[in-house]
Amino acid sequence: MQFLILGSAAGGGLPQWNCLCENCRLAYRRDGRLTARTQCSVAVSADGENWVVLSATPDLRQQIISNPELHPKCAPRHSPIKAVFAPNGDIDNIAGLLVMREMQPFALFATRSVMAHTEGGVFGVLNADLVQRRPIALDESVDTGLGFTITAFATPGKIPLYMESRNEAEIELGAEGESTVGLEIRDGDRRFYYIPSCARMTDALRKRLEGAEILFFDGTTFEDDEMIRQGLSPKTAWRMGHMAMNGERGSVRTLADVDIGQRIFVHINNSNPALRHDSAERRQVEAAGWRIGHDGLRIDTAEARS
Amino acid sequence: MQFLILGSAAGGGLPQWNCLCENCRLAYRRDGRLTARTQCSVAVSADGENWVVLSATPDLRQQIISNPELHPKCAPRHSPIKAVFAPNGDIDNIAGLLVMREMQPFALFATRSVMAHTEGGVFGVLNADLVQRRPIALDESVDTGLGFTITAFATPGKIPLYMESRNEAEIELGAEGESTVGLEIRDGDRRFYYIPSCARMTDALRKRLEGAEILFFDGTTFEDDEMIRQGLSPKTAWRMGHMAMNGERGSVRTLADVDIGQRIFVHINNSNPALRHDSAERRQVEAAGWRIGHDGLRIDTAEARS
Repeated sequence: MQFLILGSAAGGGLPQWNCLCENCRLAYRRDGRLTARTQCSVAVSADGENWVVLSATPDLRQQIISNPELHPKCAPRHSPIKAVFAPNGDIDNIAGLLVMREMQPFALFATRSVMAHTEGGVFGVLNADLVQRRPIALDESVDTGLGFTITAFATPGKIPLYMESRNEAEIELGAEGESTVGLEIRDGDRRFYYIPSCARMTDALRKRLEGAEILFFDGTTFEDDEMIRQGLSPKTAWRMGHMAMNGERGSVRTLADVDIGQRIFVHINNSNPALRHDSAERRQVEAAGWRIGHDGLRIDTAEARS
Repeated sequence: MQFLILGSAAGGGLPQWNCLCENCRLAYRRDGRLTARTQCSVAVSADGENWVVLSATPDLRQQIISNPELHPKCAPRHSPIKAVFAPNGDIDNIAGLLVMREMQPFALFATRSVMAHTEGGVFGVLNADLVQRRPIALDESVDTGLGFTITAFATPGKIPLYMESRNEAEIELGAEGESTVGLEIRDGDRRFYYIPSCARMTDALRKRLEGAEILFFDGTTFEDDEMIRQGLSPKTAWRMGHMAMNGERGSVRTLADVDIGQRIFVHINNSNPALRHDSAERRQVEAAGWRIGHDGLRIDTAEARS
């Protein structure tokens, strides 16, 4: 199996269009202490020729151009992208569909509630004769026809920001349902996970991840309240439907005892100090066995085993 | 006045995600015979600090990062982009609004019919407390408050692709109304034009453009039928709501006798041979007094006059 990180940043990317926090300032200056990142997405393939894109981000056009695996291979029209899975209905997971327009067949997989966000309005640009919409049920194993299956499972999360009630008290946080899912990629007995949004760790999730070969996991913030402390937003990671790396309830601690081959953070927010190569936070998570994902990171499991 | 071409390609950009026509192949290979281009947009400013973006393309995040003028200037949140004008409701003119999310005030100007395409669904992500929606009437001069006015005027065009009837006979081509507009930027008596979509030349348009200092004009194709001949699409430029550069009814010929300071093609389709520096078509349009716009092209009219 081959995995390719197309983007490793949380929504808005790094730098964000209207942010001059420490990390964004370094990114705009092209300072060597960190690298710019597009919004979170991973591409997966069994044969290196046909790819499934997990999350269609607003940066998808740039991500395709940056990665030769996804370039068209024959004239006049072609794409190695055979399918897209949208794990939730946020802009950073579906706006990329607006890039995939006109005269190209592919399959779009999403739960019914996420699929509904990709219908009507501007999404009418997806050619209904060519784009197969395949609603999926939670915990249903989908055969991609490309040598592996993908199964969506509920993770604690929330509905997309643009669907939120303006009454804060009405917003349900940490709910498990169709709105936010993780994806299990399976090749025989081998299991790989892409979980860009997870508001808290659960025993069920820990159990599921036991024995995983690779985990791409929600690395939104280092501390739950770092956006508030940096003056960037009044929201905690929890309020945004995401987890912190650090702390008693953070991902590093809560997954420490789970047997996972490679653990890689993706969906990393611009506020996260672990983005800086020279930070104490980076050293801390790496010492705990995690990698900080970056755009263009490739993992070929055949090579990894040989 | 300062003008900055953020993007110079037609919808889909150069290269397109699923195209391996001659120009796209060269662009994917980073061949020196042409340069890659993002989707068509021009930024305009009187003071160099506050900018209005004409067309919010899906590439807007990348366009901001590529142009220091549009970087945030102070922490924590800031943007030099004070307003956006959407000249039509196509994906390449409005999808960039999905990039401009959360905690940043700006004004969005569009005709009522185009504004309607930016409401509801995913566009709910625009913060209603911060984004001022300003519907504009045709031929109404809008004071941007930044030292210049902008007036939208109807150009021959059509409704957005994603709103088209599946019954080809029902699609009205070359209609003049609110669906497709040109923008007149005015600083006192000085006039500048941004017209990324124009299906045919009219006497009224020729008359309007007389005496313009700069014209950024629809350069979609070189020949009306080139996409058909290249096997890329069954559509002519006319069918897409755009003009060819060449021919009796083309822009070069029909604007030849109009007094215009600088004439610059933008919204150039991947199929257009004039994109190649070494092409006969490039030599022909340049000999006729046109420039082929490219991303990052800057024009400061103060410098131009000094």
